[in-house]
Amino acid sequence: MKVAVIGTTGYGGGELIRILHNHPIFRIHSIHSTRKEIPITEEFPHLNSIFDESLKKVDSEKIAEEADLVFLATPSGASGKLAQSFYGKDIQVVDLSGDLRIKNSAEYEKWYKHESVNEEILANAVYGLSEWNREKIMNAKLLSNPGCYPTAALLGLGPVVSAGLIEPNGIIIDGKSGVSGAGKTLSKTSAFAEMNDNFRIYKVNQHQHIPEIEQQLQLWDDSTAPVTFSTHLIPITRGIMTTIYAQLKTEITTKDAVELYQEIYRNHPFVRVRKEGQYPSVKEVCGSNYCDIGLNVDQRTGRLTIVSVIDNLMKGAAGQAVQNANLMNGIDEKAGLNFIPIYP
Amino acid sequence: MKVAVIGTTGYGGGELIRILHNHPIFRIHSIHSTRKEIPITEEFPHLNSIFDESLKKVDSEKIAEEADLVFLATPSGASGKLAQSFYGKDIQVVDLSGDLRIKNSAEYEKWYKHESVNEEILANAVYGLSEWNREKIMNAKLLSNPGCYPTAALLGLGPVVSAGLIEPNGIIIDGKSGVSGAGKTLSKTSAFAEMNDNFRIYKVNQHQHIPEIEQQLQLWDDSTAPVTFSTHLIPITRGIMTTIYAQLKTEITTKDAVELYQEIYRNHPFVRVRKEGQYPSVKEVCGSNYCDIGLNVDQRTGRLTIVSVIDNLMKGAAGQAVQNANLMNGIDEKAGLNFIPIYP
Amino acid sequence: MKVAVIGTTGYGGGELIRILHNHPIFRIHSIHSTRKEIPITEEFPHLNSIFDESLKKVDSEKIAEEADLVFLATPSGASGKLAQSFYGKDIQVVDLSGDLRIKNSAEYEKWYKHESVNEEILANAVYGLSEWNREKIMNAKLLSNPGCYPTAALLGLGPVVSAGLIEPNGIIIDGKSGVSGAGKTLSKTSAFAEMNDNFRIYKVNQHQHIPEIEQQLQLWDDSTAPVTFSTHLIPITRGIMTTIYAQLKTEITTKDAVELYQEIYRNHPFVRVRKEGQYPSVKEVCGSNYCDIGLNVDQRTGRLTIVSVIDNLMKGAAGQAVQNANLMNGIDEKAGLNFIPIYP
Amino acid sequence: MKVAVIGTTGYGGGELIRILHNHPIFRIHSIHSTRKEIPITEEFPHLNSIFDESLKKVDSEKIAEEADLVFLATPSGASGKLAQSFYGKDIQVVDLSGDLRIKNSAEYEKWYKHESVNEEILANAVYGLSEWNREKIMNAKLLSNPGCYPTAALLGLGPVVSAGLIEPNGIIIDGKSGVSGAGKTLSKTSAFAEMNDNFRIYKVNQHQHIPEIEQQLQLWDDSTAPVTFSTHLIPITRGIMTTIYAQLKTEITTKDAVELYQEIYRNHPFVRVRKEGQYPSVKEVCGSNYCDIGLNVDQRTGRLTIVSVIDNLMKGAAGQAVQNANLMNGIDEKAGLNFIPIYP
Repeated sequence: MKVAVIGTTGYGGGELIRILHNHPIFRIHSIHSTRKEIPITEEFPHLNSIFDESLKKVDSEKIAEEADLVFLATPSGASGKLAQSFYGKDIQVVDLSGDLRIKNSAEYEKWYKHESVNEEILANAVYGLSEWNREKIMNAKLLSNPGCYPTAALLGLGPVVSAGLIEPNGIIIDGKSGVSGAGKTLSKTSAFAEMNDNFRIYKVNQHQHIPEIEQQLQLWDDSTAPVTFSTHLIPITRGIMTTIYAQLKTEITTKDAVELYQEIYRNHPFVRVRKEGQYPSVKEVCGSNYCDIGLNVDQRTGRLTIVSVIDNLMKGAAGQAVQNANLMNGIDEKAGLNFIPIYP
Repeated sequence: MKVAVIGTTGYGGGELIRILHNHPIFRIHSIHSTRKEIPITEEFPHLNSIFDESLKKVDSEKIAEEADLVFLATPSGASGKLAQSFYGKDIQVVDLSGDLRIKNSAEYEKWYKHESVNEEILANAVYGLSEWNREKIMNAKLLSNPGCYPTAALLGLGPVVSAGLIEPNGIIIDGKSGVSGAGKTLSKTSAFAEMNDNFRIYKVNQHQHIPEIEQQLQLWDDSTAPVTFSTHLIPITRGIMTTIYAQLKTEITTKDAVELYQEIYRNHPFVRVRKEGQYPSVKEVCGSNYCDIGLNVDQRTGRLTIVSVIDNLMKGAAGQAVQNANLMNGIDEKAGLNFIPIYP
Repeated sequence: MKVAVIGTTGYGGGELIRILHNHPIFRIHSIHSTRKEIPITEEFPHLNSIFDESLKKVDSEKIAEEADLVFLATPSGASGKLAQSFYGKDIQVVDLSGDLRIKNSAEYEKWYKHESVNEEILANAVYGLSEWNREKIMNAKLLSNPGCYPTAALLGLGPVVSAGLIEPNGIIIDGKSGVSGAGKTLSKTSAFAEMNDNFRIYKVNQHQHIPEIEQQLQLWDDSTAPVTFSTHLIPITRGIMTTIYAQLKTEITTKDAVELYQEIYRNHPFVRVRKEGQYPSVKEVCGSNYCDIGLNVDQRTGRLTIVSVIDNLMKGAAGQAVQNANLMNGIDEKAGLNFIPIYP
Repeated sequence: MKVAVIGTTGYGGGELIRILHNHPIFRIHSIHSTRKEIPITEEFPHLNSIFDESLKKVDSEKIAEEADLVFLATPSGASGKLAQSFYGKDIQVVDLSGDLRIKNSAEYEKWYKHESVNEEILANAVYGLSEWNREKIMNAKLLSNPGCYPTAALLGLGPVVSAGLIEPNGIIIDGKSGVSGAGKTLSKTSAFAEMNDNFRIYKVNQHQHIPEIEQQLQLWDDSTAPVTFSTHLIPITRGIMTTIYAQLKTEITTKDAVELYQEIYRNHPFVRVRKEGQYPSVKEVCGSNYCDIGLNVDQRTGRLTIVSVIDNLMKGAAGQAVQNANLMNGIDEKAGLNFIPIYP
């Protein structure tokens, strides 16, 4: 199968190449940038002698003719327009941006501060939380890949929210992310001398991933109240941890919680539920498509603590995108994704 | 005034020397270690040519005779015993460990897993949260210096808890700390190759700072329910951030919250409340005794987010200890502590 | 082919599992530790659900019977003894330690400070600098895998030393390594709070890799004088850079140097010579088996600057070990090693 | 004494404020930026409640009238023009840029790629290597503060070059610097995700500090040949190490070298020579004005290895600038600079 990648000079695009270059079924047919037509090795010297293609400009017509599937690794705004340009053409589209995730366009515009794509496209875009939306993903032609934080948060909350085990009010998600999540755009916040040996909170109560998380939680349990979701920058390159707090409706033990999660994720190879008393650290999934989850019930407060970690560029972006592309094409969802975490 | 420091080879002890060496009133009379009698520069080469004293063994009798004040920068367990050995002697004692913080000895033993000091000593130890217990501190002879996390959490929560503005149930404190907080004892967790580019949660719902935080919250508002307090390790050397979530009883704005905090901390030079829309990062207090606080009210959820940062070795340990020693002796609380944060 | 790994709990051992688990020909038959018989996931949680084997104790007899090849990822001292125990048995041995590298046992003992293996074993051990000793490696039964620094230094120096282009006197190798190179043994030097935001020199003029480097240089040009080789610790997990300085015998340009290197390494897929004006950084090879080289001739001084980078755990240890095992068995040297560097 | 600071929004300017704010003699009269007139706390939030001044635009006439001394913490190019504008006015000038360092204007233009200030100004600017040019500095009105790398390299080389102990040919200086040395200008090279867990070489054989180093070496020994000087970026915020290699003319021991350096720097409080067998790491001078030096003679090669470390923003910039300003005014050179290194 021939695939094209648009937005290849970003970190998500670079990661797509790392995955697709060794994929057993997909073959990279062409790579594209909206801004430069240069050899990709000028942007990513680590690809020297491995993948020496040049970036082409974006011609949706031509791409749709030549390729079977296109990944949009472009920023919000650009992605929506590209999705629109491919809409109705004979090509599968996997969009890594937030542009197709929020079904309610008014809500999208409130959080993203620019115009949404039209309602028809939104209606046809399938939300690609692989472990929870598998049936629809398998039949999707237009796929909206989840955000990095929402992936970690939702994989952590899915089992208890869908089972109605926690109070609908009072969910707190404390998110922490490595700096690659901010992409390659230069900013003072992500300059080394400013971020090294630092830790900062940002977009307090205003992160655009909030409506994405709430939309899915309400699909699982429509009584779910608005959540508090915070985002922090960790001085690491890759990795997200969400520490999630929720009030249990009934008394259960940590052992019960672990068993519930293990049961639910039993057939999902990329979610690893740690046994009682163990909690994942972000390094344990680095470079891989895993989401690792640890659980603890605090008898003193009746609250459940959920810890989930992912590599934001893999399960939080390019990895899950390929996992979804696999599912869309009836391929083993693990194809091309057998990366063992790089440790240490 | 002559001061002695016991436990000088640890990071807290080293920081005490950094502060006391340039203190206008206190003079380091002697430094002590329970384990080695070596020049301090063998342990801390950065002190070469600045402070060349040798560590002496601990003789409480002699120290009490010669010095006016002693800092115990020793670990929990050792500190309690030392506090006991100085009890009743003519010397001021400032203990940096957790051994004198929990008034209820059964509670102490539950969380610390070893025997508490006796009730009389506990009753006489003054809890040194400088900004909130000033009167008692000024008359203290035996001072129990707060823990690093509790300092950040309590300075963040004090204004709203003491004012009865938040629901007594549902306080969540998500704490993150640099690795120096774990001290100098070698462990796999704090090895560079394991911690670099990593982020981990630890002691989930079991951290010994939980009872310390709750004890003070209940002094402010005895209806306060048990809190959830989580601790994470950031790959940085110094710095703590606590992100705190609490349900407001009444509708207030971020502006109201900021004004309340600015009013309360108006005469407290080491607490800096950021204006609306600004949040501190840990680097902004590095090497200094400041606690910086940012606030946000989320109208969607009715929750208050409080962000507080400190340098765990300064306001979280040695800095606050000296601030308290200043107060105990009627000295300007800023004496010896005019460190501007080191940036970047 | 069945392979066994001894010393699996170290970073080199962990990396061998990462490579071998997806190797097309080799299959991990058993993993061993001289110290613990536990599931490997207790030591390496990142292997959960991927590779769940338990460590077995070391029984050379049994391993030789069951496996076709054994990797010794054990420390110097232990490795030599194990190599001895396998000697003469029907099994290929690849030793990652320094124990079989120095042909002169007196020289070994001078630098390693303990007893050498016997001369017969030394004589039969083939030095596995893959790109320069290919013929012998292909026929080896006992392979001594090069050290991390020597690999970077020798791949950098090989072309000009073997061509007689530089003065035999005055070679300076300034080496810098990530902290994983020091292994998992806890030490103050490699504690996070000591090494973070730090940079240190160690073993000044005393590193045990000096005789290994000189031995190979003298094979290429027996007039080579003793070299100066320095080692520094960088606060990163993986990666080595050696910056090498040598006086040119004749005037050549940077362009000439680049062309010479590109020619020599033309058929060596794991060595990538950068074009004129470009120099590799260590991140560009992270997680992969590449050695990237940059070159500059300074007309002012007549000196050549050679910059070479590797991932110390890959081309500097486990990666080159598998590359050599491939060569020993007539397998494509790239088998199992098609890792694209993980970037960023 | 009233001082003005121009270029206050950069890291060097920020560090000047950290020093000058607590200086016993100098008082910050005004701060200036060529680009923005905003409160300094908008640029440097860590100064909140400590130093709340606003940046003023640059009016050389007015500054010269009101202040006694002006620090130019502006970039190369801007500094030269400012120096020119103050020339002949009744104000002391301390320039932290490279614009006044190279006495030969053609040489300056070759390395800096823009026009030099005029020869008269160059002739009157005193090079401020505090420990080696003290007499001239004490009488200077116009001071050219040394570069960060040259400070580390020259303090390391001064004793042996001025004593004629090393061969004039073959000096190799391998420099490594923290990222703050690159200033606040955003670039891909200094973005966190690119620099974290990385190590890179830059400006190979082309760094503009080369002529500065050679100029001083030739003042000490006019037979000194061109040196090789390399520069690398370490993923740390502050700190420089230079590892220097030189061929000894005669056999001396490490002990001899240490004694020579200790003797020469005996009365220089900011240079600390480590005893035999000890080598400084960069963290040991962090935040302070010290330059620490370690020495080793390698009997095998007859070469001397010199290790010197500084904080690039202190002894490598603002610290030495204040030290020089002290000397220019007959004040104790340590005034305002009694910072103990911040450790860990």
